[in-house]
Amino acid sequence: MYALGMVSLRLCAGLAVRGSGLCVNTLRRFSGITASQIDEEVARLLELKAQLGGDEGKHQFTLKTAKGTRDFNPKQMAIREKVFNTIVGCFKRHGAETIDTPVFELKETLTGKYGEDSKLIYDLKDQGGELLSLRYDLTVPFARYLAMNKILNIKRYHIAKVYRRDNPAMTRGRYREFYQCDFDIAGQYDPMIPDAECLRIVYEILTELELGEFRIKVNDRRILDGMFAVCGVPGDKFRTICSTVDKLDKMSWADVRGEMVKEKGLSEEAADQIGQYVSMQGGMDLAERLLQDPKMSQSKQACAGLTDMKQLFSYLQLFQVTDKVVFDLSLARGLDYYTGVIYEAILTQNGPIPIPEAGEKGEECVSVGSVAGGGRYDGLVGMFDPKGRKVPCVGVSIGIERVFSILEQKAEASAEKVRTTEVQVMVASAQKNLLEERLKLTAELWDAGIKAEVMYKKNPKLLSQLQHCEDSGIPLVAILGEQELKDGVVKLRAVHSREEVDVPRAELVEEIRKRTSEV
Amino acid sequence: MYALGMVSLRLCAGLAVRGSGLCVNTLRRFSGITASQIDEEVARLLELKAQLGGDEGKHQFTLKTAKGTRDFNPKQMAIREKVFNTIVGCFKRHGAETIDTPVFELKETLTGKYGEDSKLIYDLKDQGGELLSLRYDLTVPFARYLAMNKILNIKRYHIAKVYRRDNPAMTRGRYREFYQCDFDIAGQYDPMIPDAECLRIVYEILTELELGEFRIKVNDRRILDGMFAVCGVPGDKFRTICSTVDKLDKMSWADVRGEMVKEKGLSEEAADQIGQYVSMQGGMDLAERLLQDPKMSQSKQACAGLTDMKQLFSYLQLFQVTDKVVFDLSLARGLDYYTGVIYEAILTQNGPIPIPEAGEKGEECVSVGSVAGGGRYDGLVGMFDPKGRKVPCVGVSIGIERVFSILEQKAEASAEKVRTTEVQVMVASAQKNLLEERLKLTAELWDAGIKAEVMYKKNPKLLSQLQHCEDSGIPLVAILGEQELKDGVVKLRAVHSREEVDVPRAELVEEIRKRTSEV
Repeated sequence: MYALGMVSLRLCAGLAVRGSGLCVNTLRRFSGITASQIDEEVARLLELKAQLGGDEGKHQFTLKTAKGTRDFNPKQMAIREKVFNTIVGCFKRHGAETIDTPVFELKETLTGKYGEDSKLIYDLKDQGGELLSLRYDLTVPFARYLAMNKILNIKRYHIAKVYRRDNPAMTRGRYREFYQCDFDIAGQYDPMIPDAECLRIVYEILTELELGEFRIKVNDRRILDGMFAVCGVPGDKFRTICSTVDKLDKMSWADVRGEMVKEKGLSEEAADQIGQYVSMQGGMDLAERLLQDPKMSQSKQACAGLTDMKQLFSYLQLFQVTDKVVFDLSLARGLDYYTGVIYEAILTQNGPIPIPEAGEKGEECVSVGSVAGGGRYDGLVGMFDPKGRKVPCVGVSIGIERVFSILEQKAEASAEKVRTTEVQVMVASAQKNLLEERLKLTAELWDAGIKAEVMYKKNPKLLSQLQHCEDSGIPLVAILGEQELKDGVVKLRAVHSREEVDVPRAELVEEIRKRTSEV
Repeated sequence: MYALGMVSLRLCAGLAVRGSGLCVNTLRRFSGITASQIDEEVARLLELKAQLGGDEGKHQFTLKTAKGTRDFNPKQMAIREKVFNTIVGCFKRHGAETIDTPVFELKETLTGKYGEDSKLIYDLKDQGGELLSLRYDLTVPFARYLAMNKILNIKRYHIAKVYRRDNPAMTRGRYREFYQCDFDIAGQYDPMIPDAECLRIVYEILTELELGEFRIKVNDRRILDGMFAVCGVPGDKFRTICSTVDKLDKMSWADVRGEMVKEKGLSEEAADQIGQYVSMQGGMDLAERLLQDPKMSQSKQACAGLTDMKQLFSYLQLFQVTDKVVFDLSLARGLDYYTGVIYEAILTQNGPIPIPEAGEKGEECVSVGSVAGGGRYDGLVGMFDPKGRKVPCVGVSIGIERVFSILEQKAEASAEKVRTTEVQVMVASAQKNLLEERLKLTAELWDAGIKAEVMYKKNPKLLSQLQHCEDSGIPLVAILGEQELKDGVVKLRAVHSREEVDVPRAELVEEIRKRTSEV
């Protein structure tokens, strides 16, 4: 009876996909068919697949990292460390604490948070137990953390890797495993003050990293929705039309309009009205002008967004960052969870690009792409709270893979060598049979907190010891010989100038400290 | 024709598992049945399962982290940062570079490296493309990195999370996601010099972290194998008997002996001979004595290991760490890839435990458990190199979850508060309508690199501003009022002493720096 059911299920499963999809109804008619039985069937089929695979030709061992991922070598790590220091320094300057969350979450924690992008989530294999997925960003785990710990306000940063099964474009810095550096402010505060601080943070970080000119686009989900409403977009099409508008940084208006009308069935009239708005860029003045706009002012939502936008710009003026910030009605951003202000920072390749005057049409600019983005998400924590209690949040995420790429290229081009260690001194000898003495002195230096290296050879050549210093930028060599041991001194050699001086052993640590603190 | 084939396959798949497993042969008779067709079937079944799931009662949302994982809150992160600073400081003092590798590897990269523990590896779901697994340790990815980049020598550290589907025991610091801090030296060098440095590193780190007394056990795989051989263990039983010996830190000798004889079929005589050896602990003298041992000296392998052990102890004496290091013949370690020296550091709960004299039987000690371990693995890189070229390696892994637990408990017990931010000054006001002035001053401080906070309220109460400083340990408050603005000063208040002094605005940054650098 059971076996017969399974056979029919299998027959039916095949038809369901190839055929009309009516099979689920048929399926329900078999009593006792459950998800766990399907699991068993799946396991059986995969077992078969494994057996098939085992015989299909010889195993070829592949020496590579997984698609879309990469190793960081010591040079890249040295650059990465510098970038992180700058970013963490900024986050700490703004008084943020830090938290950490696991690399995977319950699958259901991530479900329904990312809209169309959900298909890019990495799932873990069901090996018994919970269904898990790798985190897709740091925002949803943060919201889960707040709800789980009933935290009503916090200012926190989180730097960690996130995972997306996207089409990798590694030369342009798009990976499947990549870092996000997130800063978020959760809590019920007066409007736009935390939002302005987030933008100030983007400004500070991009300035400090010396990546060249950048621009921060700002918009508001409420302005977008209000705009769609007054332009005659049906309510159920807001999200999908929003996704199309989001493509304006990659596609021309003509193409975007085409997609709206032909693919998404929007009226030409509505599309053209949207076209007028999304070409607008400006500052506080644009917000003021739109508040007077006969059409826009009909939307309560848009008016709320525009009033806040004015307020935001007034704070940005106090924070002295308005030279890089543009209110840009074409900025949409893909993720579902934003509810208010949204922003995105782009590097502008060809030198400074003037911020257009209010109403002036934004000129086309070749962007290296987005390096930071974020916005307000007042509803996300409530999605996790059993009682739906809301915790308003605003935050920004710095996407630093592109930053790494740019700084790596800069380092390549520069004559200056990137040091990958911080070694201050190499303990060396020109004579044989002094390994024990070298090890003893090295341990003395370690005890004093000096960063010291010694070659792992019984009798290394002096030249190869000096060569190692040249290669890895070690500034000093402490040379031991029979004579030095007898005299109670160490010959301290400056690698760059090749000057040598005998230093009494008791003064060596102090001398090394003095010489290397000057750098 | 195709559809019919699939139906039969499905029928067959069901029978294969329930029945005799002969189905694969039947399967091959259907021409054109491939793994990708099975994939399609699997996808169909899973689709059905998802549809079924939607109807099976109401969804219960679970607000938790995945089993065996945890979040780190800001206090825990502050402790973690301190621990990492100590460890990284030590690694850098020893001249190590750092690298990073992806969190997942091709599944085949991890296959055949971990012996019985392989079942604990987390696999990713097959969503099309490569088969991936989460890294189980940092050593195998390191070896893959060396082979892939043809690196013949490097001294590197790597701090990152690893994943094991083990039975979690979170109160004892055993998690499914946990940090490892690895330091490894790869390269062809004179024997035991890098090995001695690894032990010195464990010694330095455990001392600096102030975790109480510890002991580092040392042994050598060659000594173990030689011992097994001379005790009459059949060659094919070396690994499994080794696993049993490894349990001596958790089980009594009687139980270990029982497992060897009853479960693993070893002769009682052989077991008893092993029993005599594994009770031995000592130092260089024990190595010397065993070299003279009539039985042990028959094994070439054992002699090579014992000679190296003597050499190791001579270097450890120069490094001044022999007070904590014991040559312990019962140390086995589970992983397959070790080829020479192995070691493990344990915290000894009840104060100092005397290192037994040579030949004296080691007394039972209650150990909090292993906090570091490692050894030499000269064959691992060769397993990845297409031409099998070997790169000798030795390394150590600090397992810091237990360290975190201990330091968290210490922090709980201590009267001193753990600060989770580094904010130097809070910009406050006692009067209304000064938000703009507060924001302006805060931005000035940020510009000067001062860590400063401001409340995100238009008119916060002075008391709540001061309370926030108390709560989060901010030492200074810069208070603005109408009078101060008129006079061009800021009232600087020391939170602890409540002293207030007017500071000219132009001197404020300098004054804050002076006051907070004293701390």
